[in-house]
Amino acid sequence: MITALGFDADDTLWHSETIFEDYHRRFRELLARYHDPKTVEAALYATEMRNLDLFGYGVKSFALSAIETAIDLTNGTIPADELRALIHGAREMLAHPVELLDGAAETVAALAADYRLIVITKGDLRHQERKFQRSGLATHVPHCDVVSEKDNATYARVLARHQIAPEDFLMVGNSMRSDILPILELGGHGAYIPYPLIWAHENVPAPVDCPRFHALANLRELPALLARLRSA
Amino acid sequence: MITALGFDADDTLWHSETIFEDYHRRFRELLARYHDPKTVEAALYATEMRNLDLFGYGVKSFALSAIETAIDLTNGTIPADELRALIHGAREMLAHPVELLDGAAETVAALAADYRLIVITKGDLRHQERKFQRSGLATHVPHCDVVSEKDNATYARVLARHQIAPEDFLMVGNSMRSDILPILELGGHGAYIPYPLIWAHENVPAPVDCPRFHALANLRELPALLARLRSA
Repeated sequence: MITALGFDADDTLWHSETIFEDYHRRFRELLARYHDPKTVEAALYATEMRNLDLFGYGVKSFALSAIETAIDLTNGTIPADELRALIHGAREMLAHPVELLDGAAETVAALAADYRLIVITKGDLRHQERKFQRSGLATHVPHCDVVSEKDNATYARVLARHQIAPEDFLMVGNSMRSDILPILELGGHGAYIPYPLIWAHENVPAPVDCPRFHALANLRELPALLARLRSA
Repeated sequence: MITALGFDADDTLWHSETIFEDYHRRFRELLARYHDPKTVEAALYATEMRNLDLFGYGVKSFALSAIETAIDLTNGTIPADELRALIHGAREMLAHPVELLDGAAETVAALAADYRLIVITKGDLRHQERKFQRSGLATHVPHCDVVSEKDNATYARVLARHQIAPEDFLMVGNSMRSDILPILELGGHGAYIPYPLIWAHENVPAPVDCPRFHALANLRELPALLARLRSA
């Protein structure tokens, strides 16, 4: 019986990729004199992947990779003055107001009475904590665990710390790779709610024939899914 | 009676500021054509302080502030090619091997039998977790809590989660601001072990007339302090 719910945060509870996409657009414009948009995007993604293990996730890692890519793609000739925009853009992203997804506040509030709720998110520790505090969701969600990677080991550790058995747990998120597959492997349930935009890194195929995998169109469908699972 | 010990990590268990200092030296050299070392350092510190609330602590924040400072101090004229070194330097810092302080391994191992041990550190989540894993200390220390700020509220939350009463807790660290003063205010003990180098931000005066404040010359003195407190 499901007693605890985990929520991914970025693009599950609040908008994030739209903010990254705006930075990407400005990055492509900054380098438009040098390269076509596709080349710029491919180079940025390659830099991000190369830096991922050391830098980890989040805005600051992304901004450092963007600066590095801009220097690389111009053979070091881009005026440093123009690189200011990449740092300024990072500050804007970090300061951006939290915009909840449609249905997030109501759904979380409605489920808080019957389930233990945990936000489990990766990225910059300080940024994610700040967004959680500003989201207004902390009144219903007692815990926000910021983790450096969302793999089986991380979920096993988080569940153990909260003394939740995997089979009693359902994770809700927009990333098949980070929110759904690890928790299915541990024996828990996953509710996948796609977001219109997704970072290529997170974009992996859905599981085949797993009865604990559930696909929803939006957060408002979550209470009905949980009711079905309770009566099954 | 003290039953649990918290250890700061950077410059308490392993060397950190020496690695930052090496980056500072190269930063001053990079800008030596433009400004004297004192101006360079003052500008970098001012940028760090301005960015601290949004960026938080750690290597990536520091590198972004260094890049911004280099652009500002040269009115945007520094060749972008030269900024590569600032990103490369950040990668080097993140990949730098963990070098334990003298006495750290033995002291932690000796105390593990009698006390609950927790590492409490601020900075980049992924970087601090990686250093903890590579330090070899994880066999004796079951928990490493990476936090985004080390203030009263953070310590209160960490102690509550581990179900430790403040008066049963002693925090060990090299930063009066971050490791000692908050825990004294909560009613716990603080063991201050200065490190030869310290970031100006962390450098605040010692408390006056607090019987729960203890100053040590190095980690090897910690078991004797704890023995004294037990028999007091």
